[in-house]
Amino acid sequence: PEPPAEPKGKRPPVLVDGVTLNGPTLDIREAESFLRDAMPIIMEEAVWKATDVKEKVCEWRSPEQLKDLLDLELREGGEAHPQILQRCRDAIRYSVKTGHPRFFNQLYAGMDPYSLVGRFITEAINPSLYTYEVAPVFLLTEEAVLQKMIEIIGWQEGGDGIFSPGGSVSNMYAVNVARYHHCPDVKVLGLSALPRLVMFTSQECHYSVAKAAAFLGIGTNNVYVIPSDKRGKMIPAEFEKQVQRAKDEGALPFMVNATAGTTVLGAFDPLEEIADICERHNLWMHVDACWGGGALMSKKHRYLLQGIHRANSVAWNPHKMLMAGLQCCAFMVRDKTNLLQRCHSAQASYLFQQDKFYDVSYDTGDKSIQCSRKPDAFKFWLMWKAIGTKGLEERVDRALAMARYLAEEIKKRDGFRLVMEPEYTNVCFWYIPPSLRDMADGPEFWRNVAPVVKERMMKKGSMMVGYQPHGDKANFFRQIIISPQVSREDMDFLLDQIHSLGMDL
Amino acid sequence: PEPPAEPKGKRPPVLVDGVTLNGPTLDIREAESFLRDAMPIIMEEAVWKATDVKEKVCEWRSPEQLKDLLDLELREGGEAHPQILQRCRDAIRYSVKTGHPRFFNQLYAGMDPYSLVGRFITEAINPSLYTYEVAPVFLLTEEAVLQKMIEIIGWQEGGDGIFSPGGSVSNMYAVNVARYHHCPDVKVLGLSALPRLVMFTSQECHYSVAKAAAFLGIGTNNVYVIPSDKRGKMIPAEFEKQVQRAKDEGALPFMVNATAGTTVLGAFDPLEEIADICERHNLWMHVDACWGGGALMSKKHRYLLQGIHRANSVAWNPHKMLMAGLQCCAFMVRDKTNLLQRCHSAQASYLFQQDKFYDVSYDTGDKSIQCSRKPDAFKFWLMWKAIGTKGLEERVDRALAMARYLAEEIKKRDGFRLVMEPEYTNVCFWYIPPSLRDMADGPEFWRNVAPVVKERMMKKGSMMVGYQPHGDKANFFRQIIISPQVSREDMDFLLDQIHSLGMDL
Repeated sequence: PEPPAEPKGKRPPVLVDGVTLNGPTLDIREAESFLRDAMPIIMEEAVWKATDVKEKVCEWRSPEQLKDLLDLELREGGEAHPQILQRCRDAIRYSVKTGHPRFFNQLYAGMDPYSLVGRFITEAINPSLYTYEVAPVFLLTEEAVLQKMIEIIGWQEGGDGIFSPGGSVSNMYAVNVARYHHCPDVKVLGLSALPRLVMFTSQECHYSVAKAAAFLGIGTNNVYVIPSDKRGKMIPAEFEKQVQRAKDEGALPFMVNATAGTTVLGAFDPLEEIADICERHNLWMHVDACWGGGALMSKKHRYLLQGIHRANSVAWNPHKMLMAGLQCCAFMVRDKTNLLQRCHSAQASYLFQQDKFYDVSYDTGDKSIQCSRKPDAFKFWLMWKAIGTKGLEERVDRALAMARYLAEEIKKRDGFRLVMEPEYTNVCFWYIPPSLRDMADGPEFWRNVAPVVKERMMKKGSMMVGYQPHGDKANFFRQIIISPQVSREDMDFLLDQIHSLGMDL
Repeated sequence: PEPPAEPKGKRPPVLVDGVTLNGPTLDIREAESFLRDAMPIIMEEAVWKATDVKEKVCEWRSPEQLKDLLDLELREGGEAHPQILQRCRDAIRYSVKTGHPRFFNQLYAGMDPYSLVGRFITEAINPSLYTYEVAPVFLLTEEAVLQKMIEIIGWQEGGDGIFSPGGSVSNMYAVNVARYHHCPDVKVLGLSALPRLVMFTSQECHYSVAKAAAFLGIGTNNVYVIPSDKRGKMIPAEFEKQVQRAKDEGALPFMVNATAGTTVLGAFDPLEEIADICERHNLWMHVDACWGGGALMSKKHRYLLQGIHRANSVAWNPHKMLMAGLQCCAFMVRDKTNLLQRCHSAQASYLFQQDKFYDVSYDTGDKSIQCSRKPDAFKFWLMWKAIGTKGLEERVDRALAMARYLAEEIKKRDGFRLVMEPEYTNVCFWYIPPSLRDMADGPEFWRNVAPVVKERMMKKGSMMVGYQPHGDKANFFRQIIISPQVSREDMDFLLDQIHSLGMDL
């Protein structure tokens, strides 16, 4: 009673619910023709012109103007190819060119051609990283990259890890793993069955630490904030005081978040001293090296993270200093007991079948809080293969040398003032227009200078650099250097341009 | 005392820390040449061959074999272009072709050319969606897509939303927003200051609900699991019993997760009746429509989600049924009080400056738990523009008609047995080889059939379809239909192939 073997080839037409089901309905020739027309636009406009120092960094339009220009509404009918191609051109035109050599606005920048090819490949393949069965290449490259990063951190016994959608999520992983390590019951019973948990971080840490405390049910009040010194580094003695305070209150201190490369100042917390305190008080030591981790690639600069090998977990984003492209965020633990899996697993039987024909330890998706997950490690792996560890090191060394050059130039120029000597590639400085240079208590008057200069540079499209107030300091510029496309000429341009845009203020 | 205007053009060489800083060090001509060579490989191998029904779905290698083939190690030196191009070819060759018409393995599939172009654009532009300043086009397209999806859900007063890295994370958002709505103090004080919170979900829900409860500190024991009926739908009376139980225990019931399109069976919980119970007991109603949300596009099938307009929040992944490409996951709330912002914000002053020159309400990043965030809505927006609402509707209608066809074919064939009539495009069925057809208590014997057939199809590379045990049911196949590339011929092929691979068992 076997079904009859039907002849191969086209079968007779079948209509179900008014729909003809024979043959595919996507017209592949039309799709090919669209892609053939679209790809040169992307390469020319979004890759080459977008990274050309002679082109604009941005083509500013206000939200209201841009809404009109883009015609955002989604309608019943579709549009023809020429119109869609024009939409592609417009989307590119009005986007900020984050790969432009003069985009200094965030902790990521630049364009690496190998990473970009890796990204095009993964977008075309469209994998999800739960199981080896559907993403063999991408799970193995993820594992290889994690093992190499763990080696570079210096965990000689090895470790485990997972790529996550952002450093903020990596820091959340750290909080969850740390509390599970202290109180494994939390996974099942929840926090209402536990004493009040307290975690520690410095005043200069990334804001995601507060978000993690809120999201994970710990509460932002239970993040005890440790003062930093003038350079932005956590003060170890103050850390220990806060631990004692939590204990005196009857709370359960369980982890510290140390920052290696703070967001604004680029400061590195003293990891060795923090590790000593963690050992004395049995605290989980997490290092948020999302930004500063890049320095680990450099023999010359990795001293900035001295002691990171003593951390229990590390977050490190190669999409920042190492230019792997957004997003590429590793969360790693110094653990060989399958902690990630135990802490996060839910053992979905429809996905993580145990009766598969291959070694299911390669189905690493249950370590993650995500289900579908993008192959963020592959582009980094491909770039690393292409330029080697040495190539990554040279980029980091050059970015730090460039920051040093800029700092010295700032010291030479009238009207520019460093906030502090840079330790990493965050160069923080004020610009003081001539009219304000001789006033007493300057900062109060300079406050509005950076926002106006920023507005003018964006409307001109000449460059983008961030600014912010910080503690008791008025708005200052934060210049970030990453890309090998950036040259000394761009540093000179930056200072010339700020002066030229702000000298009338 | 202004800095002298330096001449434009090349400046004298500058050496800092042994590094020459003049000019860019990335060789753009070399980059161009690499991309020129790589792009045809990607288009040919990862797009056209990968979606060609005459090619293989996968080229199976065991983890050990593949590790050898890929040469994963990351070394000190880089590699030349020909070698990197070969790595690209290998990565594509050994990857599963999830856009292939015979990839039926997950709740996503297919390749849409407009979405793909959208993805290439965003990868080239490399934006991060925190502020209008750095991602104007992508924030506005996100807003437009969210508003349209909210309209389609039927929230006539409007709502708010954010794209997230996966449906699991969207469900976490729901839990966090729901508890914040009930207990705003939780953000600051944490769960240790609150009564025990209890949430509800059906036994058929996605495993991310358990992950959310663990991650957010609620505890998996505080997820009260509601029995489903034989079709996989939550039983409303049982839901209300569980609410009463939580109240009797002195706990605080705060939310229900209703599922519209369950993972295995494709079942839809009865939203109207669930909404009635939520109103009676003041519970937040979240609908996980990650998979089933696609049916909202169809006038014919949207009755499956009747009542969704009464939900307080909805998770809906256009990367599944609507083929927007991984990832594309909207989390939406029926709220006009800025709840997302209030619940998640941390007001980082270095990023969300309030003294900017444009309307900072467009800086929506602080609604998110992420900091850097990918522009996942843009590709969907571009595809929607190209094929229109009508085009999306036609795809959904066709996928459901195809599932209907397959179910009828299964009923006609000996040795095939439906687990149940499909309501969506999950077609669940057993294959029973001739040798086992006449045995009593079949399922026990059929248990090993699906894993062996799956192994054989993967080693052959002819197709991929998932299987799982479920409740008291032995391993059955779960066929998923999505792509307009899939035809009636592929359905016939599926059944022929399973029989041919398993008839000797």
